[in-house]
Amino acid sequence: MLIILQAGSTKEDVKHVVAELAGVSITGYPAHNQGREVICLSQHLNIELRTWLHTVCPLVERVLDIKAPYKLASAEYKPRPSSVLVGQGSGQVRVGPGNFVVMAGPCTIESEEQLFKTAAVVKQAGANILRGGAFKPRTSPYSFQGMGVEGLKLLQRAGQQYNMPTVTEVMESAYVEAVAEYADILQVGARNMQNFPLLREVGLAGKPVLLKRGPSATLEEWLMAAEYILATGNEQVILCERGIKGFDPSTRNVLDLGGVVAVQEKTHLPVIVDPSHATGKRSLVTPLGLAAAAIGANGIMVECHPHPEQALCDGAQSILPGQLCELVKGVHNVTAAVREIYEPIEAVEVAA
Amino acid sequence: MLIILQAGSTKEDVKHVVAELAGVSITGYPAHNQGREVICLSQHLNIELRTWLHTVCPLVERVLDIKAPYKLASAEYKPRPSSVLVGQGSGQVRVGPGNFVVMAGPCTIESEEQLFKTAAVVKQAGANILRGGAFKPRTSPYSFQGMGVEGLKLLQRAGQQYNMPTVTEVMESAYVEAVAEYADILQVGARNMQNFPLLREVGLAGKPVLLKRGPSATLEEWLMAAEYILATGNEQVILCERGIKGFDPSTRNVLDLGGVVAVQEKTHLPVIVDPSHATGKRSLVTPLGLAAAAIGANGIMVECHPHPEQALCDGAQSILPGQLCELVKGVHNVTAAVREIYEPIEAVEVAA
Amino acid sequence: MLIILQAGSTKEDVKHVVAELAGVSITGYPAHNQGREVICLSQHLNIELRTWLHTVCPLVERVLDIKAPYKLASAEYKPRPSSVLVGQGSGQVRVGPGNFVVMAGPCTIESEEQLFKTAAVVKQAGANILRGGAFKPRTSPYSFQGMGVEGLKLLQRAGQQYNMPTVTEVMESAYVEAVAEYADILQVGARNMQNFPLLREVGLAGKPVLLKRGPSATLEEWLMAAEYILATGNEQVILCERGIKGFDPSTRNVLDLGGVVAVQEKTHLPVIVDPSHATGKRSLVTPLGLAAAAIGANGIMVECHPHPEQALCDGAQSILPGQLCELVKGVHNVTAAVREIYEPIEAVEVAA
Amino acid sequence: MLIILQAGSTKEDVKHVVAELAGVSITGYPAHNQGREVICLSQHLNIELRTWLHTVCPLVERVLDIKAPYKLASAEYKPRPSSVLVGQGSGQVRVGPGNFVVMAGPCTIESEEQLFKTAAVVKQAGANILRGGAFKPRTSPYSFQGMGVEGLKLLQRAGQQYNMPTVTEVMESAYVEAVAEYADILQVGARNMQNFPLLREVGLAGKPVLLKRGPSATLEEWLMAAEYILATGNEQVILCERGIKGFDPSTRNVLDLGGVVAVQEKTHLPVIVDPSHATGKRSLVTPLGLAAAAIGANGIMVECHPHPEQALCDGAQSILPGQLCELVKGVHNVTAAVREIYEPIEAVEVAA
Repeated sequence: MLIILQAGSTKEDVKHVVAELAGVSITGYPAHNQGREVICLSQHLNIELRTWLHTVCPLVERVLDIKAPYKLASAEYKPRPSSVLVGQGSGQVRVGPGNFVVMAGPCTIESEEQLFKTAAVVKQAGANILRGGAFKPRTSPYSFQGMGVEGLKLLQRAGQQYNMPTVTEVMESAYVEAVAEYADILQVGARNMQNFPLLREVGLAGKPVLLKRGPSATLEEWLMAAEYILATGNEQVILCERGIKGFDPSTRNVLDLGGVVAVQEKTHLPVIVDPSHATGKRSLVTPLGLAAAAIGANGIMVECHPHPEQALCDGAQSILPGQLCELVKGVHNVTAAVREIYEPIEAVEVAA
Repeated sequence: MLIILQAGSTKEDVKHVVAELAGVSITGYPAHNQGREVICLSQHLNIELRTWLHTVCPLVERVLDIKAPYKLASAEYKPRPSSVLVGQGSGQVRVGPGNFVVMAGPCTIESEEQLFKTAAVVKQAGANILRGGAFKPRTSPYSFQGMGVEGLKLLQRAGQQYNMPTVTEVMESAYVEAVAEYADILQVGARNMQNFPLLREVGLAGKPVLLKRGPSATLEEWLMAAEYILATGNEQVILCERGIKGFDPSTRNVLDLGGVVAVQEKTHLPVIVDPSHATGKRSLVTPLGLAAAAIGANGIMVECHPHPEQALCDGAQSILPGQLCELVKGVHNVTAAVREIYEPIEAVEVAA
Repeated sequence: MLIILQAGSTKEDVKHVVAELAGVSITGYPAHNQGREVICLSQHLNIELRTWLHTVCPLVERVLDIKAPYKLASAEYKPRPSSVLVGQGSGQVRVGPGNFVVMAGPCTIESEEQLFKTAAVVKQAGANILRGGAFKPRTSPYSFQGMGVEGLKLLQRAGQQYNMPTVTEVMESAYVEAVAEYADILQVGARNMQNFPLLREVGLAGKPVLLKRGPSATLEEWLMAAEYILATGNEQVILCERGIKGFDPSTRNVLDLGGVVAVQEKTHLPVIVDPSHATGKRSLVTPLGLAAAAIGANGIMVECHPHPEQALCDGAQSILPGQLCELVKGVHNVTAAVREIYEPIEAVEVAA
Repeated sequence: MLIILQAGSTKEDVKHVVAELAGVSITGYPAHNQGREVICLSQHLNIELRTWLHTVCPLVERVLDIKAPYKLASAEYKPRPSSVLVGQGSGQVRVGPGNFVVMAGPCTIESEEQLFKTAAVVKQAGANILRGGAFKPRTSPYSFQGMGVEGLKLLQRAGQQYNMPTVTEVMESAYVEAVAEYADILQVGARNMQNFPLLREVGLAGKPVLLKRGPSATLEEWLMAAEYILATGNEQVILCERGIKGFDPSTRNVLDLGGVVAVQEKTHLPVIVDPSHATGKRSLVTPLGLAAAAIGANGIMVECHPHPEQALCDGAQSILPGQLCELVKGVHNVTAAVREIYEPIEAVEVAA
């Protein structure tokens, strides 16, 4: 259940409702959504309890019977797909229905030259958003861990120069503020999908969040992770499928495109696809990027490098500048080819 | 390694070569391909051994150094994609590059009326090949097991009436002959992918074979299963991805489209996709069917039923007639949209 | 539901009941169990229907409300664990509660010398049942496929000489009769777990069957496969866990010992464990064999070879003679150590 | 490779070596182990480079050719198994070869009464270490998240009263200090196995760390996570297998006991097993706990609750007091039964 308080209700009012619920042994979890105070319950409230609640708490505006364990993320709560606005001014990009976005850039920011060269390629190819890793979660402590804040600054400058919003990963609460200062989208990586304290911190940072699916996360676990962010009052969440664990060493992961379609039926949040990490192999990126467009996803995120053979990280999955051009053109062609099937839905819900 | 004997070589000649190899402790496995006798070896032959072999066996035409454990199925052996011709006369269909095929029909043949009604729908929608199950592999012994030979006869008649080749599953050696008599493509189901005696039997039947990937088969295991068929001299093998086992109950299986692209790099055989069994859910079939076109697969196989709610088996994943029309149109639009990317490859290798 | 007809009922009586059920749109599937004719239904029968059934079919003795989709295999049907008697005369072995069995022998029968040498080792180590493959399901058509009937004959002779029952795999219906003639237990391999025609054939052969779990089979699918055998009237089914597919290349498969305990709660059938195929690695066989004893499984099946480095198949997972001695002693020590925990259950149900 | 500097070397000396390596384009990663400064390299150093290094950096004592990507965790580095000493004074417990430990307690600390009651049970049953969750990683933001620092204080008091070391999870860097103050072992949960900043922080806290395996982590990824901790100079790492993701809903996870044996071959670190989280089902905990003893693991961690039906979290997997007694007795019996097989290895390496 989801209890929505009237506009203008305060944290004190929330406490009152939670206390009343506690009196009947029901635990209410305060959250914040669309500028309203809301209270989420795991239990179901029957009609008697709902009537009683309205009586003892007149500030309760509505009680919604949302069956999914994720409340704010559910399509029951918002049947129409949401859009997330990314970046500022003329470079602002809407991620949501009817606007297939392409996020591209190097896996890792290695130097000013490498980043700006790639950014130029990304812009020229027609991609919308610049990606680049400054803090890198590496399996080994003996691998390059990223340029850190220095990299963030370069990313910001490259974004400004090429008028593109930027996205980069934040790995720990201590750097949320810094990343939020320099980047337009805070990425939570697959390994951190259930790092709940980090989810709360990025939620509170108030900027759009790109939440990658964990390699062994069910759709429900993924949406519950999104719910941690949404419950802070931050509605600007973009989901990103990047491959799940499989048994076949032929590809690094298994890109679960069926899961993308299935999750779109469960949530109003935009969903994009990362074919680079999913496969770990350059030649698979373009076909799967096109497939993302074919299934009606809201965009893709790909790694691109002018000289992949020199990349400090994940060069084998980075596509070449020419391939990025081809891919961007391709996804737009596919999107046009399937437009009739995914009837144009007016984007009404812009998260802010 | 693959040893190819000269045209006109006999089984006796093969025996001679195998015996000579045995003399140096190398096991040769006779196979038959493109009308030629060939001998496959797991070991590598160095230059000395190759020279020696040509000397003692003058009928050896060529010795190919194919590193993949599957020899005849490998792209090393045939770098250009193969096509398989299905059916006869005016209804004949080529499965291969440049011709995206749609196989459609009911999961299970239930009655003359149901089958013919569905066949009409399939034809009208623009699909190419009629599917329908007469022998059904059911998890439970207490489920409908199919109409058997009676169903095969209905399928043949429906195919003739609507001028479409037909495909149906064969589950055991005892019925290979009957299925080969009535149907144009013999399907080996996912559960039987490593039923090696059955693979040999369908190979020897001399008709096109649709080989589904097992739900936990690696790409290599899948191609090795194809190799069992190819080694009988039957080159008309079509691969079909139908979902692998995953951990998330949201979808029945995980459609491994990345695996389809990866297997296309390893083999010359055509590969199609079955989004119906992969997902078990009607609303996911169209998006994933479109994705199959986007990745450059050679076709799809979908279940369709005029009244899915009455279907004896798998109604929940059968799409409606209107959805099939939309899907057929959609895959052709997507194919056109991506044509430039998958450069038009001339289909030279027609298996026979 | 499970309908049990009175003793002495005939196939004609079964037809009558099935016809009456059909009259009310319920499909009944005839089976045979413990010498009785039984009829299995997927649907539930409410009290009215049960009363009606008793009235129109006086030969109906009992109607059991078994909720599991597997009826004859379920612990609801037989709450006490079953035993299966294997072999004849003084060498007969009971597989079931209170008697931890060890099946051991070479992966593949390679020669008379190799088999008899191994059989001597197996006997001396204190194992109970001799295993050896005559028909080998090989991933590659270019691998040794077994000695066939010649191997079966050797196995029978070795079993006789060392007074041990034997177990060997049967891969296709055409050889069920031959395998049943020469061996005491017919093994259905993991790849054939859902080869339904084969399951029916081995059921009808009337000999004990060892049913391996498929590498991606759920417990329910496994028990449904057993149900195919049980429904033929053959109650002598032994289940064998041999590892499921996993994502980590460190071991060939993941031995699912938790699944063994869980399946024992669902079924009365004995369950053994194969740590050799599960791991593919000699050094893991002994620890996991001991673990099988610790969880209260009914036995293990292991591969043993006097000279594993010369084995034609799976040498890397075959243990050495000395290790087999140690393992047999070890499992008996562990069984004794945990006896109090798995309270001694009298074995009452001996399948025949 | 692993470069070990002479005793007494300083951070300055490390910098010098790293700079020299950088001069030949090799990246060295400083670590600290056994009171020595060490430098880890991903690359191999050939004999020329090693000679050169000794010349330019006389403080280099030894250069070890460790091939595993994890250096300090590898059995190549320390062939004999390590022990970790936990707690202080008379309650101190050694986790390592020859001393099978039992960590037990409630999933979540709910109240003083519940914790102390359970602690009394744990002590009486003969378990060695008290577990209890104060910070709980919950899939849903709308579930009880633990008592926090209040719970830590209760845990410390309960540990003191019953003279048992304590273990509890730490979820974020901000609480590492607090947890290290009140508890004897810092647990890193499965969801945080690749939370690299957290791994570094718990490493620096200088207390024993229990590192759970992530549900989709390979053994290599697990050991690399341990390496992050070891590289900080903290050698007191205990590994804990707690189930990996599987496809069968019958059990929550698949306990990978084969993986435990395999990881013991790769590392010197002690490894324990958590059968409670692995299965999610009370009746499976005892059999799998006994199996952990049978495979030669170094201990188990189980959840226990005096009234599981009232537990705020994971009641279904908590065993009852009587079951804990039986289990503790059982694991010691099994350990004794298999002692001869896992030859008594003198524990020489005590991490500190």
